[in-house]
Amino acid sequence: MGVPPRGAALFTDLYEVTMAQAYLALGMSDTAVFETFFRKLPPGRSYVLAAGLPDVLDFLEAFRFEEDDLQYLRGLGLFSDEFLERLAGVRFTGDVWAVPEGTVVFPNEPIVQVVAPILEAQLVETFVLNRIHLQCVLASKAARVVEAARGRLVVDFGARRAHGTDAALEVARTSYLAGAAGTSNLRAAKEYGIPAFGTMAHSFVQAFDDEFDAFEAFARLNPGTTLLVDTYDTLRGVDLVVELAERLGDRFDVRAVRLDSGDLGALSKAARARLDAAGLHDVRIFASSGLDEYSVAALLADGCPIDGFGVGTQLSVAQDAPTLDMAYKLVEYAGVGRTKLSSGKVLPPGRKQVYRRVDDGVFAGDIIGRPDENLPGEPLLVPVMRGGRRLSQYDAGLDAARRRARQQIDALPPALRSLDEAGAPYPVAVSARVQDDLDRLRRARQTP
Amino acid sequence: MGVPPRGAALFTDLYEVTMAQAYLALGMSDTAVFETFFRKLPPGRSYVLAAGLPDVLDFLEAFRFEEDDLQYLRGLGLFSDEFLERLAGVRFTGDVWAVPEGTVVFPNEPIVQVVAPILEAQLVETFVLNRIHLQCVLASKAARVVEAARGRLVVDFGARRAHGTDAALEVARTSYLAGAAGTSNLRAAKEYGIPAFGTMAHSFVQAFDDEFDAFEAFARLNPGTTLLVDTYDTLRGVDLVVELAERLGDRFDVRAVRLDSGDLGALSKAARARLDAAGLHDVRIFASSGLDEYSVAALLADGCPIDGFGVGTQLSVAQDAPTLDMAYKLVEYAGVGRTKLSSGKVLPPGRKQVYRRVDDGVFAGDIIGRPDENLPGEPLLVPVMRGGRRLSQYDAGLDAARRRARQQIDALPPALRSLDEAGAPYPVAVSARVQDDLDRLRRARQTP
Repeated sequence: MGVPPRGAALFTDLYEVTMAQAYLALGMSDTAVFETFFRKLPPGRSYVLAAGLPDVLDFLEAFRFEEDDLQYLRGLGLFSDEFLERLAGVRFTGDVWAVPEGTVVFPNEPIVQVVAPILEAQLVETFVLNRIHLQCVLASKAARVVEAARGRLVVDFGARRAHGTDAALEVARTSYLAGAAGTSNLRAAKEYGIPAFGTMAHSFVQAFDDEFDAFEAFARLNPGTTLLVDTYDTLRGVDLVVELAERLGDRFDVRAVRLDSGDLGALSKAARARLDAAGLHDVRIFASSGLDEYSVAALLADGCPIDGFGVGTQLSVAQDAPTLDMAYKLVEYAGVGRTKLSSGKVLPPGRKQVYRRVDDGVFAGDIIGRPDENLPGEPLLVPVMRGGRRLSQYDAGLDAARRRARQQIDALPPALRSLDEAGAPYPVAVSARVQDDLDRLRRARQTP
Repeated sequence: MGVPPRGAALFTDLYEVTMAQAYLALGMSDTAVFETFFRKLPPGRSYVLAAGLPDVLDFLEAFRFEEDDLQYLRGLGLFSDEFLERLAGVRFTGDVWAVPEGTVVFPNEPIVQVVAPILEAQLVETFVLNRIHLQCVLASKAARVVEAARGRLVVDFGARRAHGTDAALEVARTSYLAGAAGTSNLRAAKEYGIPAFGTMAHSFVQAFDDEFDAFEAFARLNPGTTLLVDTYDTLRGVDLVVELAERLGDRFDVRAVRLDSGDLGALSKAARARLDAAGLHDVRIFASSGLDEYSVAALLADGCPIDGFGVGTQLSVAQDAPTLDMAYKLVEYAGVGRTKLSSGKVLPPGRKQVYRRVDDGVFAGDIIGRPDENLPGEPLLVPVMRGGRRLSQYDAGLDAARRRARQQIDALPPALRSLDEAGAPYPVAVSARVQDDLDRLRRARQTP
């Protein structure tokens, strides 16, 4: 459902364990540095919002193979008893540096940096990538929808279309992190302590022979509710709300109507006119149905009187950018910088730090350097775990991440906040030292 | 991680519980029929492969609100003590009809039909949709990749990019259901009893100062292994494998090389030539890196000597069709047919059965009729749960579903098996009785 740490160690790919056995057999126990980063921005995107760190820290703290996992591995016939005995005792004893959740990040910038004996660092790859990748994807999408809504309420309606129950919880969490008001899903609202939203579905109206009776019964039982008006004919539904107000007089307490199909722009204007004509100026209009950041922006640009948006499918699957080209790559082993050279874009070897310069409150450019370089700007990577234990000074609270996301997005150059890709990408450079190390490694590996 | 039934009842949307309270307060306890279906096929798709039923049955059998869930609901201030006491005792007592997993389905055909007191049927909506939607999306994508591979090995490599750990497990399961050979993920392989695949990653090669040393050490430890040859320069990597064969002689036991970057077509041909020239005809070529059904089909159409494909990102997120327009709709309450009319495409009211005609082993057309109509063809919906208990005659085994998927896809009209959208959609009609009932309901609901 969520991510119970129990059994999570086996959420790894077979090759990680095969390699672990080889490292052990070969006596390779030196410290490795693995960096989690993405290679390039998806089309149309100008930044990524970092998220997912708390799940990674929970996982690393609880890391262990359970007895039934070890039995399963034994049954595969690929692993020696000696290795499996050793695996039973493996815990994560390393250090982690990371950018705090809610930080805006760019290509090649380390988001999570794992520093540990190579066997441990290798085994955790699949889980770390799964958590960081998903939550960065979702938080980045949610930030766009929130931006498009220009301060109006955005509520996550995505639980039914999210890719699984786990993803549904993360949609709720990352949407809230990115500035949404809350979620329709109760499990997520409970788990993360965020507001739950929701009132009625079409089935309730359909279960009555008469739509008006359904409205009256529901409104009487739920003061301050929202009535869903589009089961049969949207504007007739609005008229029934007006009729209900006339019938109930002072006892009328309906906060909003919800439009969930058809031309939301035209219907919202017509609904507003009918409500206003009846003096129901305080009844708000809430819209849902296939929305994304573009349709939300278009409705508001057209002056539609919509006070809140329920966003489901597109918030939860981010079809335009459902994946990032994210990797967890070895950059250092036994003190020596390493990298893969065969792909087009090459990550420089060696452990890194990101320095971000701010001019007049606006992000002015990043430099990817070494942790011990004295470069201008704020270092983004901070220590979050030492010797396998979470550092108490790292505040992983969701509200802190939400505030940070707000501050970070507000500090972006305005062109990067547009829903369309910025003309020029945000400037990210590598330091001379990092570039030199890459050049040297390339030369050393060149085919003679 | 997977889908532990405990706590799953709260994986529901707030409005389901609000409506449940209203049903109880209003004494509405009659039987409802809800149907799970999708409205239209995504662009480029000709069918959907049904999947996800076992999770739904597990969930319904275990359905109950836990004490801490009830406390959470109490804290929201929206629910009466009387209702919460009642909610504590709610179990799922209804019947379920469904198409078996691995059945090919088309728009408006019920995939899962829930028949239960309206309060129970309403509360389970979010979870049922989440499970059926995700697994239908993933199984349908996997079927295309398997089709494109024309009998060659397809292995799920998607765990790191799937949307969460839960989705990753379902990618493995549904890929296997659709004909893939197995998965890289150990947790999934263990959970569903499917084969695990995998050998080495770039990090292993990088951790050595010399690529040849990495190959030699790994091959010695893992007889029959696959060596990843593209860390620095793919064809040089292949040459090192040839060199290893020369050095080891009879002791050389490498089953395959894996290509994971660059122009897989050209590299596979060049690698094959070099391996063959060295007499290494038995060393297979396995390819991965950004594959989907189109690139797999193109590689094979081009005669590339690739023996197996590792498919990750696109298998796991199905970016071209990550969602289906799937709904869980009330079609009957208290014996009366119901439907929503405001949307463009309207689902006919009333409980349905699907009849599929087969001519000469090929599916010839479906009719959506009533369960008690005597229409030609095989009825697709079968009883799978009665009175809240799974029926033992329903075999939910993954291997049975895999065989059914194979048979169903083989029985499709050939145009529907193409990777491109078929010129004409598969014929699905509604029976005269169903159409009459819809027409009558429309007339009755018409605005005067």
